[in-house]
Amino acid sequence: MQRRHLIATGALVCSLLVLPALAAEQNKPTPTAKEILAKSTPAEWRTPDPQNLMVMQLPSGRVLIELAPDFTPLHAANIRTLVRQHYFDDLAIIRVQDNFVTQWGDPNDDENGDKRKLRSLGNASKTLAPEFTRAIDPKLPWTPLPDGDVYAPEVGFSEGFPVGRDPASGQEWVAHCYGTVGVARDVAPETGNGSSLYAVIGQARRLDHNLAVAGRVLEGMPLLSGLPRGPEPMGFYTQPQQRVSIESVRLAADLPAKDRPAIQVLRTDSASFAALVEAKRNGHNAFYPKPVGKLDLCGIDVPVREAKPAR
Amino acid sequence: MQRRHLIATGALVCSLLVLPALAAEQNKPTPTAKEILAKSTPAEWRTPDPQNLMVMQLPSGRVLIELAPDFTPLHAANIRTLVRQHYFDDLAIIRVQDNFVTQWGDPNDDENGDKRKLRSLGNASKTLAPEFTRAIDPKLPWTPLPDGDVYAPEVGFSEGFPVGRDPASGQEWVAHCYGTVGVARDVAPETGNGSSLYAVIGQARRLDHNLAVAGRVLEGMPLLSGLPRGPEPMGFYTQPQQRVSIESVRLAADLPAKDRPAIQVLRTDSASFAALVEAKRNGHNAFYPKPVGKLDLCGIDVPVREAKPAR
Repeated sequence: MQRRHLIATGALVCSLLVLPALAAEQNKPTPTAKEILAKSTPAEWRTPDPQNLMVMQLPSGRVLIELAPDFTPLHAANIRTLVRQHYFDDLAIIRVQDNFVTQWGDPNDDENGDKRKLRSLGNASKTLAPEFTRAIDPKLPWTPLPDGDVYAPEVGFSEGFPVGRDPASGQEWVAHCYGTVGVARDVAPETGNGSSLYAVIGQARRLDHNLAVAGRVLEGMPLLSGLPRGPEPMGFYTQPQQRVSIESVRLAADLPAKDRPAIQVLRTDSASFAALVEAKRNGHNAFYPKPVGKLDLCGIDVPVREAKPAR
Repeated sequence: MQRRHLIATGALVCSLLVLPALAAEQNKPTPTAKEILAKSTPAEWRTPDPQNLMVMQLPSGRVLIELAPDFTPLHAANIRTLVRQHYFDDLAIIRVQDNFVTQWGDPNDDENGDKRKLRSLGNASKTLAPEFTRAIDPKLPWTPLPDGDVYAPEVGFSEGFPVGRDPASGQEWVAHCYGTVGVARDVAPETGNGSSLYAVIGQARRLDHNLAVAGRVLEGMPLLSGLPRGPEPMGFYTQPQQRVSIESVRLAADLPAKDRPAIQVLRTDSASFAALVEAKRNGHNAFYPKPVGKLDLCGIDVPVREAKPAR
């Protein structure tokens, strides 16, 4: 009856997490994500460097963002400078464009804002070298995905980030998948400085290698995606009360030890991540008469868990 | 100054719609979507058959869904039967799973619901032949996209729907892109009947050819995507007050003429749609140092417009 109970929700059943009983019915049951992660070893999990972990506090909760300094070091450094000046405190989510991005920064930085009231960038740079792509670094971990991609000649994961590569140009870049955090800019490529950031909530691969990627949301995407869309064509809010205010943004490194997020991220070069990829690709159970057989770069989440408290 | 004004929003500039001034700066300016649509001819637009157009009224506004009877005729017929019985009136959005789907139907159909209170399906069938795929019909219009796909051997548009095809099996199916409306079901393939539907709000291509697609949202996606995510793993709401109630669902054909949505959809086999595809693929302007060069099946919206009132 448990099976029926799980499924009889009028529900679309899709997550391997909820199908342990079903998988067992097959001749060759596909391990569920839960089963795969239960067998993972401690060494397969990493604790994000607190210098790279941003904690954005919204009225609705906490958003955790991991910076990507191996891909965009100048941007990571500038964002750290801004955060350490408390630049983002009391700024706001200024834009939610459906099926595209949620953007935050200085409300006076938008079209109708009062430019005289723009918050100072302080010691942070106003312009930065673009860092839209970087030379492929064979020293970085690389877990290729086998099923191709529409936008990039090669795709895979590196240090937890979804990455596109072009062997012809020798360049690689973090791709604009769900949860990727990018650096908003004006027309000129060097005008992005990290004072306005966006998280991908929809189809945004067309931004790949045309914007710098600052990092990726590890926790709290629903707080950014489940917001009313702005009324302007690009999703900007038109009234101050529509905006979600940002209480604070801090680096985990600057928080008292007791307040640091205790999270771990599954290494994307681990055997357990490879098993998750394979389960997504060729998982079969009673709900799926036909295995999917493929996985696209943006089709898999990198697991994050609460770290067990030290004893 | 207009250019600077458009761009100096701290903004991520992405939509061709907002870049007319920029495109003009290039040697070979790419026409903007607005320019392409301004030159479209009346014959390139179609008025959805009112027998296929569902009007779902939410407290926040109107959601328009076009059924896909050429792909899933039994489901379209059963959904029409349900709608004509006012089956959906006062039911609710019961589930929003982040980066996946928003689902609506009978709240008593979920795990914690009271099955004795389930609304009757009346004259509608409880089970239907699955219709997950159909034999490729050379008589249906077909606009292939040239850049490949991770999940399907061939992709393109047919009658306004994003479609995957497998020449080896001779089958085709509507793909689970943003806005696609699918039929929730239990484990058994024939248990989907249209009484519980979902709209894709995230990555859901893995559902392709494993669920029946009822149609596509033409208008109102932000009302379905911009909702708080449910607290359960699959996004089900746990408290009645979390749910968004459905005021009514009607077929446009059953509404008084004055209340019918006056909308038109760009034909996906039109020259203007082909021009939009090409502008997305190879559009270049000052903001994009490197043209995208590619377009994936879920990366383009099919334009919808208000029909001009008849004189």
